[in-house]
Amino acid sequence: MEFWGKPLKVIPEEDTLVHISQASLGECKNKKGETVPLYVKVGNQKLVLGTLLSESIPQLNCDLVFDKEFELSHNWGKGSDYFVGFKSPNIEYP
Amino acid sequence: MEFWGKPLKVIPEEDTLVHISQASLGECKNKKGETVPLYVKVGNQKLVLGTLLSESIPQLNCDLVFDKEFELSHNWGKGSDYFVGFKSPNIEYP
Amino acid sequence: MEFWGKPLKVIPEEDTLVHISQASLGECKNKKGETVPLYVKVGNQKLVLGTLLSESIPQLNCDLVFDKEFELSHNWGKGSDYFVGFKSPNIEYP
Amino acid sequence: MEFWGKPLKVIPEEDTLVHISQASLGECKNKKGETVPLYVKVGNQKLVLGTLLSESIPQLNCDLVFDKEFELSHNWGKGSDYFVGFKSPNIEYP
Amino acid sequence: MEFWGKPLKVIPEEDTLVHISQASLGECKNKKGETVPLYVKVGNQKLVLGTLLSESIPQLNCDLVFDKEFELSHNWGKGSDYFVGFKSPNIEYP
Repeated sequence: MEFWGKPLKVIPEEDTLVHISQASLGECKNKKGETVPLYVKVGNQKLVLGTLLSESIPQLNCDLVFDKEFELSHNWGKGSDYFVGFKSPNIEYP
Repeated sequence: MEFWGKPLKVIPEEDTLVHISQASLGECKNKKGETVPLYVKVGNQKLVLGTLLSESIPQLNCDLVFDKEFELSHNWGKGSDYFVGFKSPNIEYP
Repeated sequence: MEFWGKPLKVIPEEDTLVHISQASLGECKNKKGETVPLYVKVGNQKLVLGTLLSESIPQLNCDLVFDKEFELSHNWGKGSDYFVGFKSPNIEYP
Repeated sequence: MEFWGKPLKVIPEEDTLVHISQASLGECKNKKGETVPLYVKVGNQKLVLGTLLSESIPQLNCDLVFDKEFELSHNWGKGSDYFVGFKSPNIEYP
Repeated sequence: MEFWGKPLKVIPEEDTLVHISQASLGECKNKKGETVPLYVKVGNQKLVLGTLLSESIPQLNCDLVFDKEFELSHNWGKGSDYFVGFKSPNIEYP
């Protein structure tokens, strides 16, 4: 299991997959409802992988698997965001 | 992992399965609660695979698997919708 | 993957399992919060497998597996309900 | 798949695991928000395995696995609670 | 399956993985909405693995896997928090 606490750019090693299984908001002093879209950038695509809401959706489960460079980010100014995931070998189908 | 940012019509290649594991709303300027039904069309069937709510359900996990042509769509005028999924070989039971 | 849009009575074929992985409400004109219990009937048992709420829980994930006749139903008068699932071989433990 | 509609005490057979994958509230006449903690008792431990809320969390998914006696219960006076699960062989690590 | 009812510091045995699959709030006398961040400490990193809300998110599913010492904690003064998980062998890739 690996925990990433920063905007995250990862280049999977050869024959390795990187799985992202959870994204969580860190502590939020400001109790007003904050909407925090999470972005994933792969190649030239930048998409919304999900949205966290500080009052009602402080975390989300996902099952993202990457075999090439990707970047996870958000633009929330008031707190941190954590990603949880792990690495596995990239087993080719025979 | 593949990310699709458009209304999505896919014809799986032979011996391939297409899995859809997540649907997410993109950023929404309009903060009013929007109800966004997501449709899947397979053959002559068009069904609601789920409903996203911009204020409270900005994403949903699913585990849809297709071995023939399908189309995912929505009719939300105010934003985008993203699908996340992957392909796998279609292994027949021996 | 199979999609069922009607009250659903299924008799799995021999050596086959039927999996139900998701239940979703169809579109609902009436925006008032509707509570829609979903029932599963197996043999003489009729149970609530879950409850959908039109305003806040328009779908639910589940992992139900059946090897004998079952019936899924609801008594919601104002809309449809869809079930998503698939079939797999029923592999006996050796 | 097995469905249990009553406070549930189970002693798994030898070499068998009992999985609990879902807990659901039955129908609730009383629409006031009810908080229903679910308890699991294993040996001398009695813990809260989760909490159902009649207005907003009528079911929860879990993945509990037991190889010895356990008891699931609640103390909600106004309705029923259902557990869904299945049995599997308990395969020892070689 | 193992249930842990206390702030939890675990050192996995050699060749063993510890999985945490669920965190739940215990009973809460105080019905005011409480926000309970859950922390995981691994090495020098202390992160928010998720946040429980006593009124709306009394439990969360996760899939955390540890092969070295970790500590789960919260600083909620008004109730308990339970973790559910299990152990598995740590099988190296050949």
